[in-house]
Amino acid sequence: MSPSRAIAYSRVHYKRALAELMDFVRFPTISAQPKHEDDVKQCATWLAEHLRHIGLTHARVIPTRRHPIVFASWQGAPRRPTLLIYGHYDVQPIDPLNEWRSPPFEPTIRGADLFGRGACDDKGQMFAHVKALEAYLQMTGALPVNVKCLFEGEEEIGSPNLLPFVMRNKNALAAGAAVMSDTRMLAPNRPAINYAERGALYLEIEVEGPGQDLHSGNFGGAIHNPLQALCEMMAKLHDAKGCIAIPGVYDGVRRWSSKERAYMARAGPSDDRILEDAQVELGWGERGYSLYERLTLRPALTINGISGGYQGPGGKGVIPARATAKLSFRLVPDQDPREVDRLFRKHIARITPPTVHANVKTLSNAEPVLIDPQHPAVRAAGLAYRKGFGAAPVFLRSGGTIPILSVFQKTLGLPTVLMGFALPNDRMHAPNEKFHIPNFFRGIETSIWFMDALASAHGLHVCSSPRPGTAEKNAEAIL
Amino acid sequence: MSPSRAIAYSRVHYKRALAELMDFVRFPTISAQPKHEDDVKQCATWLAEHLRHIGLTHARVIPTRRHPIVFASWQGAPRRPTLLIYGHYDVQPIDPLNEWRSPPFEPTIRGADLFGRGACDDKGQMFAHVKALEAYLQMTGALPVNVKCLFEGEEEIGSPNLLPFVMRNKNALAAGAAVMSDTRMLAPNRPAINYAERGALYLEIEVEGPGQDLHSGNFGGAIHNPLQALCEMMAKLHDAKGCIAIPGVYDGVRRWSSKERAYMARAGPSDDRILEDAQVELGWGERGYSLYERLTLRPALTINGISGGYQGPGGKGVIPARATAKLSFRLVPDQDPREVDRLFRKHIARITPPTVHANVKTLSNAEPVLIDPQHPAVRAAGLAYRKGFGAAPVFLRSGGTIPILSVFQKTLGLPTVLMGFALPNDRMHAPNEKFHIPNFFRGIETSIWFMDALASAHGLHVCSSPRPGTAEKNAEAIL
Repeated sequence: MSPSRAIAYSRVHYKRALAELMDFVRFPTISAQPKHEDDVKQCATWLAEHLRHIGLTHARVIPTRRHPIVFASWQGAPRRPTLLIYGHYDVQPIDPLNEWRSPPFEPTIRGADLFGRGACDDKGQMFAHVKALEAYLQMTGALPVNVKCLFEGEEEIGSPNLLPFVMRNKNALAAGAAVMSDTRMLAPNRPAINYAERGALYLEIEVEGPGQDLHSGNFGGAIHNPLQALCEMMAKLHDAKGCIAIPGVYDGVRRWSSKERAYMARAGPSDDRILEDAQVELGWGERGYSLYERLTLRPALTINGISGGYQGPGGKGVIPARATAKLSFRLVPDQDPREVDRLFRKHIARITPPTVHANVKTLSNAEPVLIDPQHPAVRAAGLAYRKGFGAAPVFLRSGGTIPILSVFQKTLGLPTVLMGFALPNDRMHAPNEKFHIPNFFRGIETSIWFMDALASAHGLHVCSSPRPGTAEKNAEAIL
Repeated sequence: MSPSRAIAYSRVHYKRALAELMDFVRFPTISAQPKHEDDVKQCATWLAEHLRHIGLTHARVIPTRRHPIVFASWQGAPRRPTLLIYGHYDVQPIDPLNEWRSPPFEPTIRGADLFGRGACDDKGQMFAHVKALEAYLQMTGALPVNVKCLFEGEEEIGSPNLLPFVMRNKNALAAGAAVMSDTRMLAPNRPAINYAERGALYLEIEVEGPGQDLHSGNFGGAIHNPLQALCEMMAKLHDAKGCIAIPGVYDGVRRWSSKERAYMARAGPSDDRILEDAQVELGWGERGYSLYERLTLRPALTINGISGGYQGPGGKGVIPARATAKLSFRLVPDQDPREVDRLFRKHIARITPPTVHANVKTLSNAEPVLIDPQHPAVRAAGLAYRKGFGAAPVFLRSGGTIPILSVFQKTLGLPTVLMGFALPNDRMHAPNEKFHIPNFFRGIETSIWFMDALASAHGLHVCSSPRPGTAEKNAEAIL
């Protein structure tokens, strides 16, 4: 189980690893869009087959109400800790399609980057772990720790089926620590471990007016336009200072010590860096906080999309019958998504004019999460980064959300190492998403070192049932 | 030239007339959408051929920079007035397509209505005049007046090429009066002549923020969302009382006498009627005016469409790089579209936050128009309605816009009779547009009676060159 032999293997096979990642990216696994349901299924089958092929046992596709979960394990190291590796093989929608320089599902190498939807979020990052497992198993026939792989196809839609699945299979998923790579580094030579993720609450609001679309000449000025009403309502979600204007929404927000904020100022990205990444000239939002603090310590409410009326070329004289907005909150400790949902609906009821009707739909939610940077598994990750990237990681807060994280923490009692390999300019969720190819290879090596360090970490909980066969039996229970 | 013989002809051939109208509606002549360019051309060819076939002379398709004009004439009545018949064969876009009960370009009869995009606006209404011409020409070999038909394919995009065409061909288009049927009656047995149309100003505004779409987790709260900024700007276009909040926009608005407003209250639709037509419970807009006044005497500003961010199923955690709104003003005497355009741009510059950029594009504009209800041609129309519909018309103001109207009035010095055959619930510009079939047949007969009444109208200007051959020569100049 020498890591150096696994490292050697990974270096010999790096070209094939990249080619396989490209095969993986080719599946258009957009979980939000029903038309891609079969693509998601096919990708799950491919992934399970791949896990079987590299030497994991009990690799299987587990159907859910929507998109399947892929599970595999290796339990050949009694008295060693068990690592749960989480990743997601579904991806974000691709629009606006015309802004892609190469087709999103035809992975394309330009310079040192691999372009394609999911190349970074999360196929590329999770595949680094898969290739690390392969290196150990093919070179030494064993892993330094027991491993359970849990790869889902619904992360981008809020993990609706993974959450109850984990609840139902606590024993089968028992482990000493979890690792997931779905977060960002500061720069190619500045690795980072996330110790905080914001929660999320996805909502949709539809504003209805007249019973049908109306001619804006024949009715304009006498009938309230639902699209105008929607804009007027959306304008009442923030105050002039950039704060969320929904009464009570800040009530649960934790205040942080000056020590914490000083560490963040030292370790985290500067305002200038964030503006550069976003390609904007000016920041925005709550006064009294750095941009990094605004997007990690503070909640946010974003209008993700608006749809209403005529959107084609030229003009159309219409008052649309209805208009829709998609919104998402990002939530921080100690906000409760259910409470924020309630406050949002109350606010909408208050600001809806009597001339239209508004319907709010909750799409998904997830709780914010904090992770102890001193946990032995997190320390093991620090050692691994030093070997894989040649630099000690900084500890960062993320503004993003990984819905399963709070379930791992609260339900499984699992500390989760957020070992990101993404760069700030990898354009996750945007056109021309990419993965920095050197980070893929360094990610593989870091994962190899991580498992090695974890094997000898002190104070890590060892599962009560790491005997060969038992976990497999538990895994059966998953089915 | 007996109208009764023409009436008899039209009654014998009504089934064929309806079948031909359905052929006409089948052409998907959406002028705003480049993909329908060929469809518009093919429809123009069909229409010119039809005009030739019924006995008009010099029927031709006249190309423009975009969609062609169809022209035809008959100049066999020396010393009689000349009537210019205007109509448009282009139609509005069809979205939202899923709300149509039958495909928009497969004309379908349900009950006493013909459903299809353009069935009413304006193919059905203009075709009534065509069938009236046919009835005279086929039955008597002549028309009671000289006629010039001017049918355009760009009305729904603001007549960009017809306007300069009319300017360049003043002599060829000279006439004593014009008629167009693109407006509404009050009810099937309550015909109406419009004596006022609002002007229009179509605009598009794009708000740009970050250089690319951003992950709303990674950037939400620190970067101004262009979609949010757009909503906030749109919310500043009206005040809380429903007035347009752009400084100076009401400066040119004419105040009307209590006599005029009393006539409007008697003749025009009630608030209840307008609410019923719109299928809404409550009216909206400027206080101190009836709904009918709000949509005719007062200007309006409508957001016709907004597009930005993710609009597919489920959610997407994105801050879009840009967002777009399409807007249209409806303008009243004595507002100047160019001045309103200037005021709008000034207001947008004032309310655009420093965190985003806004670009305004003017798509088209048209001046408001008033027509003298005492003009001999309008009186002739009144007589015709009494015979065709069995009722005297009321005089109505319309909230809509016919861009060519002000050019006819100002450039050609032509009084235009707005002889509408549409019903308030015909859903012009909306899904399930329809034309009331009895109105089509009555429209044909009314047009027959109108030409007869016009022939003997007193005080109508007779063109200086109604000799056979001269107008044809002028028409040549059109090419």
